[in-house]
Amino acid sequence: MIVEKLAIVGTGLIGGSFSLALKQAGAVREVLGVGRNPASLDAALERGLIDRAADWAQAGQADCILLALPVGETAAVLKNLAPHLKAGAIVTDAGSTKVNVVVAARAALGARMADFVPGHPIAGSEQSGPGAARADLYQGRKVVLTPQADTRADAIATVTALWQAAGAQVETLDAALHDRVFAAVSHLPHLAAFALVDELAQRADGDTFFRFAASGFRDFTRIASSSPEMWRDIALANREAVLAELDAYVAALHALRSAVSAEDAEAVLAIFSRAREARNHWIHKKT
Amino acid sequence: MIVEKLAIVGTGLIGGSFSLALKQAGAVREVLGVGRNPASLDAALERGLIDRAADWAQAGQADCILLALPVGETAAVLKNLAPHLKAGAIVTDAGSTKVNVVVAARAALGARMADFVPGHPIAGSEQSGPGAARADLYQGRKVVLTPQADTRADAIATVTALWQAAGAQVETLDAALHDRVFAAVSHLPHLAAFALVDELAQRADGDTFFRFAASGFRDFTRIASSSPEMWRDIALANREAVLAELDAYVAALHALRSAVSAEDAEAVLAIFSRAREARNHWIHKKT
Repeated sequence: MIVEKLAIVGTGLIGGSFSLALKQAGAVREVLGVGRNPASLDAALERGLIDRAADWAQAGQADCILLALPVGETAAVLKNLAPHLKAGAIVTDAGSTKVNVVVAARAALGARMADFVPGHPIAGSEQSGPGAARADLYQGRKVVLTPQADTRADAIATVTALWQAAGAQVETLDAALHDRVFAAVSHLPHLAAFALVDELAQRADGDTFFRFAASGFRDFTRIASSSPEMWRDIALANREAVLAELDAYVAALHALRSAVSAEDAEAVLAIFSRAREARNHWIHKKT
Repeated sequence: MIVEKLAIVGTGLIGGSFSLALKQAGAVREVLGVGRNPASLDAALERGLIDRAADWAQAGQADCILLALPVGETAAVLKNLAPHLKAGAIVTDAGSTKVNVVVAARAALGARMADFVPGHPIAGSEQSGPGAARADLYQGRKVVLTPQADTRADAIATVTALWQAAGAQVETLDAALHDRVFAAVSHLPHLAAFALVDELAQRADGDTFFRFAASGFRDFTRIASSSPEMWRDIALANREAVLAELDAYVAALHALRSAVSAEDAEAVLAIFSRAREARNHWIHKKT
């Protein structure tokens, strides 16, 4: 048992899977669910993701409260929760961006900011909602925590222990570095895939193009089937880092364009070869 | 039996799989293999991809000759083959670009251009060589033929029948349209993936970025593990169409950048939503 009472704000894929994994691991005794959508809470109850629905006052009495919501809702939720937080309660989140979450949390929590452990599980699915939750979602996945200078050490330790009990490997990063890293390896690829598909879709003869698209296109654009709302929120929440990555990417495309345009076979080969080597090295290390 | 004697110039994944599929379908009696690499020819013999190795004079006596080589070698190979082509022999190819192949073929074949059926099977793998060949590679895949005004109708019919026997669906496109379509749905995604990975790999702190890359990155960049030499050749062979696609893509990225920079949530959501809808529509039609 790591905590007696856990509250999940947002009982969808991310929050529901956290709860299932911790219940399976015997790491929590009771899980409360908070959400605006009664159907979603009912589904979470029915699937055993939560033991009962709760309001803000009840959730504030939990030992640990996980926010598993779009990052844009962090400020409003923490404002609702803050007045009810019992002494020693730990709050953590699962948002894809961290600098904006930290800013929102500091504004909403004030003196209780020491109890807030910003987090980001690197796991997900194109599916969402309580029906998609599964106990093994975090198995072998990374969770990045971005604690602040004033975060309580024992709060970090508890949140780390919870994620480890859920099967994840926990790493720590500076919040700004987190946002730059994920702008590059996650947010930019999503934007690049959305932009490419939309550019084709907008063409009058777009159907001819899609008709001959094959498996390379399918995999390259898989992430363009992700939630538009969630990715809009991420792009705007991490705007500066995303813009810097977009600029670096467009500069790289320009350099490649120059090499192709000049028929500089060596320069083109150098770019492609370095890319393949780097990717294969990465894949090899991962597996 | 569609043809008695088939010759394959290049006995790797593409040529070897064509041969295996046709043998399995009983569509050919004998398959000759032509190649510069003795080890590759030996492997092709051992795996039964070909019945015997042949020189240009022997290959020219085949009823149908498939070129399954990098498109940059088309001109040289056809110049070697042309003097030996028996009356009625049909030549076809499997190159990923078509306008440059047609130009090379017309220069090399002269009056025999009527016997040349330009083709492009939309199938492949990150693996290559005779060891990767398999009889079902073309099952359910598209093959695009780009016959010219002077191509013999019965040559088109024979090549169509062969690909159908190999399990493929055959479609016909104008060569220039083919090159534009594949520049958009295949060549551009490859260049975009190579450029993104190389840009990250070139950073002094690139390792930190790769360390947190996950499944979205893995799929988006899968095609950056493709053969650098093959894709260099394709980018240069289809240079004009590829440059036009790169320009359209960079323009789309600029438009998205503007929307993010201006915090225009509606414009960002519109791009992402259209992209997801178009991709899901495409995936739904394909499956």
